[in-house]
Amino acid sequence: MRQSTYLAPTMRDVPADADAISHKLMLRAGMMRQIASGVYAYLPLAKRSMAKIETIIREELDAIGAQELTLPALHPAELWQQSGRWEAMGDELVRLKDRHNRDFALGPTHEEVITSLIKDGIASYKKLPLNVYQIQTKFRDERRPRFGLLRGREFIMKDAYSFHDTEESLNETYWAMHKAYSRIFTRVGLTFRPVIADSGAMGGKDTHEFMALASVGEDTVAYSDQSDYAANLEMASSARPTPPASQTHGQLEKQATPDAKTVNDAAEQLGLEADDILKALVVVIAEEVNLLLLRGNDELNEVKALHELGATSLRMATEEEVLQAFGATPGSIGPVGVSDIPIYADYRIQAMDKIACGANETGVHYVHVGPGRDYQVTAYKDLRTVQAGDPSPDGQGTLQFAEGIEIGQVFKLGTRYSESLDAKFLDANGKAQPFLMGCYGIGVSRTIAAVIEQHHDENGIVWPNEVAPFHVHLLALNVKNDEQKALSEKLYELIRSKGMDVLYDDRPERAGVKFKDSDLIGLPVRIAVGKRAAEEIVEVKVRKTGEQLELTVPELASWLSEFFTK
Amino acid sequence: MRQSTYLAPTMRDVPADADAISHKLMLRAGMMRQIASGVYAYLPLAKRSMAKIETIIREELDAIGAQELTLPALHPAELWQQSGRWEAMGDELVRLKDRHNRDFALGPTHEEVITSLIKDGIASYKKLPLNVYQIQTKFRDERRPRFGLLRGREFIMKDAYSFHDTEESLNETYWAMHKAYSRIFTRVGLTFRPVIADSGAMGGKDTHEFMALASVGEDTVAYSDQSDYAANLEMASSARPTPPASQTHGQLEKQATPDAKTVNDAAEQLGLEADDILKALVVVIAEEVNLLLLRGNDELNEVKALHELGATSLRMATEEEVLQAFGATPGSIGPVGVSDIPIYADYRIQAMDKIACGANETGVHYVHVGPGRDYQVTAYKDLRTVQAGDPSPDGQGTLQFAEGIEIGQVFKLGTRYSESLDAKFLDANGKAQPFLMGCYGIGVSRTIAAVIEQHHDENGIVWPNEVAPFHVHLLALNVKNDEQKALSEKLYELIRSKGMDVLYDDRPERAGVKFKDSDLIGLPVRIAVGKRAAEEIVEVKVRKTGEQLELTVPELASWLSEFFTK
Repeated sequence: MRQSTYLAPTMRDVPADADAISHKLMLRAGMMRQIASGVYAYLPLAKRSMAKIETIIREELDAIGAQELTLPALHPAELWQQSGRWEAMGDELVRLKDRHNRDFALGPTHEEVITSLIKDGIASYKKLPLNVYQIQTKFRDERRPRFGLLRGREFIMKDAYSFHDTEESLNETYWAMHKAYSRIFTRVGLTFRPVIADSGAMGGKDTHEFMALASVGEDTVAYSDQSDYAANLEMASSARPTPPASQTHGQLEKQATPDAKTVNDAAEQLGLEADDILKALVVVIAEEVNLLLLRGNDELNEVKALHELGATSLRMATEEEVLQAFGATPGSIGPVGVSDIPIYADYRIQAMDKIACGANETGVHYVHVGPGRDYQVTAYKDLRTVQAGDPSPDGQGTLQFAEGIEIGQVFKLGTRYSESLDAKFLDANGKAQPFLMGCYGIGVSRTIAAVIEQHHDENGIVWPNEVAPFHVHLLALNVKNDEQKALSEKLYELIRSKGMDVLYDDRPERAGVKFKDSDLIGLPVRIAVGKRAAEEIVEVKVRKTGEQLELTVPELASWLSEFFTK
Repeated sequence: MRQSTYLAPTMRDVPADADAISHKLMLRAGMMRQIASGVYAYLPLAKRSMAKIETIIREELDAIGAQELTLPALHPAELWQQSGRWEAMGDELVRLKDRHNRDFALGPTHEEVITSLIKDGIASYKKLPLNVYQIQTKFRDERRPRFGLLRGREFIMKDAYSFHDTEESLNETYWAMHKAYSRIFTRVGLTFRPVIADSGAMGGKDTHEFMALASVGEDTVAYSDQSDYAANLEMASSARPTPPASQTHGQLEKQATPDAKTVNDAAEQLGLEADDILKALVVVIAEEVNLLLLRGNDELNEVKALHELGATSLRMATEEEVLQAFGATPGSIGPVGVSDIPIYADYRIQAMDKIACGANETGVHYVHVGPGRDYQVTAYKDLRTVQAGDPSPDGQGTLQFAEGIEIGQVFKLGTRYSESLDAKFLDANGKAQPFLMGCYGIGVSRTIAAVIEQHHDENGIVWPNEVAPFHVHLLALNVKNDEQKALSEKLYELIRSKGMDVLYDDRPERAGVKFKDSDLIGLPVRIAVGKRAAEEIVEVKVRKTGEQLELTVPELASWLSEFFTK
């Protein structure tokens, strides 16, 4: 493609609200422009990279038998009302009325539409399993669009849905998709982790998010430095401590802690470490008060607590509720003497040596507390937010934290949608059963931004070969020089004839401008036709390594084919 | 692809509201399903054909230097307000408000968005011409969605926009696109005509519509049976008649036509043919009364009249206005004695031998009217709707009528959008000029329906090779027979290894069901593995011709490769 008439309007300065590196670089390299907040035009360079990503996705999904289709963006409200998400999605769901005043949603995802389609299209277990996908524009009215393509209101996704008659079949497709995703993101050139994620309010079961590690992510990933273990911070566990073989505790004793409102206050007044104190939190689950115990330095992880306690929601008790249940203010409560309230203690408490805790008497703590002797717990649970340096739960290595960009997710939905939309098939016994379902997403536009977050330097983008908009950037350094122009034209034909994509800078610009734009756009190989054109010698630069070499035309052809096949 | 788990739910009966052959066949063949009125899901068979059409479009547009990009579906209302189409589009424009109560349109087309993008992206004539395109979902809230994909509310289009500094450059791209469209529709397998169309309210100049000839079209095409001439009925002309060398007329004479309300009434009372009477129509253009004259059997073509008279709108005068201007009721008016009202006569009047007309006296006509002697016309114009059998305006052949489906359009927009959106470039003299623009559309989803309208028989679809969802339909007639099953599996691998797409009917169904579904889905070649499987002999049927032959496996491979390359 000739750059003189190519729509890639590079720019030196970017708008102040461009807040992520990928966003800035895509604007500067002329890859995208904003049309409205969170709504972008993808210019030809971006479109080319996205098309390559989409081809990789199609190849890997087709290889495992997934079938491509296209579902509409306009969804009748009735389907979303049946699933309950017309209400649940709130302001994030883009809504509109047609000329007959009928309500529609613009699809942010397609569980409702595909379930209603399959309900009418598949009657028997004999047609299962089914795995369908589409690559399509989605809409989500984000409260705060930001980071360019990382959190937009209109974006491109690959979404897939699978339908099954048995858990085994669902499981098989789930892991086939998990593996396909790993192949896709590897080919795209991303450093990523499939992480254990929260199935949350979707009502599903297993779920993994594929996180590209980056400096700009909206999520924190905890991962082992020596194994595959990785989880979103909200779901991460650490290895359970081994309780001491035997513990001796002194005589239970009260000490005044008159103004202790926090664990740290108490620790100071008792002359102990915060980690020696039981942090006692009162939470209300299904109208019932529960006491949660953590080590003093630990923080409650509400997502994990919900899973561990089998609850769907949880709130902290009010000061009044605490007073009524424990007879003391929140800073002075503890498990000693509590018998009619469930007590859940984090596993890390099992490793405590000395223990102090509130005495359920405002301004008073117990010291020399003996677990089992002075209090009983209902059960030990995994309640805390892990910290960097914790031992990995699989016993291999310690946990590290990284920011992550969610680029994909695989999700076992179970019967969440087939039941609410009454989508059933007849099993081998002729009995109607709701479909078991999985859903699987990849953020296509987000993936391109994640690639740039991971592949850039101070001069611009550094494209991985497989998703670069073009393979080669050919620069005619001085288009007014006949020899340079002629050799450039010759190479433009030659390299394309080898099946490589070439962006050919034939603009009447200075060499300096061309070099700068070339670094910014960041194609894998730059070929500059300059002063040695008469000798048919060109200068080749590898964008990633900075390696530079001079090659004759015959050398160039073989060098290129080797570079792009290795 | 194995049909046992392929999502192609064929059906015997279609909904009563499926009103076009393509709509019925796509439903019956399991290619599409309705999600809401005018809103469809494209199932895998349809998606495959559409992908092939899209590939053909990309190849032909890339070959002439067009650049692919992707513009958003969400358009800020401001852009449409600037162009004036926020009002002009009326109920057809899908509108919505975001969570901040800001107005958006869902793009039915992208002139506004691309013009605003280019306004900021291109500053100089040096970057011109530019030709960009996208393939994307569009939205148009049709008052009456019908004919399945032929008139939907959500549909897939290829739209392209070109930007130029000179008329010559616009003209060059216009014709390059025109030729590319002809190549595209030829490859897709359509019988079509590029027809002269009305540029209408878009404010542009030249425009051609590409019409697929069909029995279900919403437009009528008039075309020559001996030349390339073709035009929408609303724009079609016939050859101008040669006026008689000399005419003699008798004495102007009044005759009573007491109850004549129509031309036919008058003809009967005068003992003349309708074509001997001047049909006199009074129209109001820009608040002024005008008299239009046609031969008695001709009908006014309002679209042509607007063009010929340089008007933007026109309405028929009320009876009161006619009375006031001519002193008679509409059935009795004519040009004789009219001096202060412009008179435009259709060219066909020049060939009239005898002439009668209303005498501007209710219930009275003149006979023996002499043009030039008894009345003067302001100008002769092309005002009538052509009729089948008229001589073609290029002098070659006569006009025939056909129904047409508009599958594409090329359009010279001129500065319609660049002026309203203030999009300018600097020309070679450093002077700011509005871009000259062209726009070019192809209805991708409509094209697939048009292909089926042209390619089907009583048993189902008859796909052209290039856009068939699969090349080959392989039927294992009895999957319980080990030899048939084994040979089918072997052929499934073998044919795919030759680079052909295969739909493999491995379902446990009766042979009769498989043959019926195979005819319905209509892939170019059917290979049935049946009773002679043990001898490695299969039965091949060409869907289009019905030709059937028995081939051994080695013969099959070479027959297939010959069939698909010829």
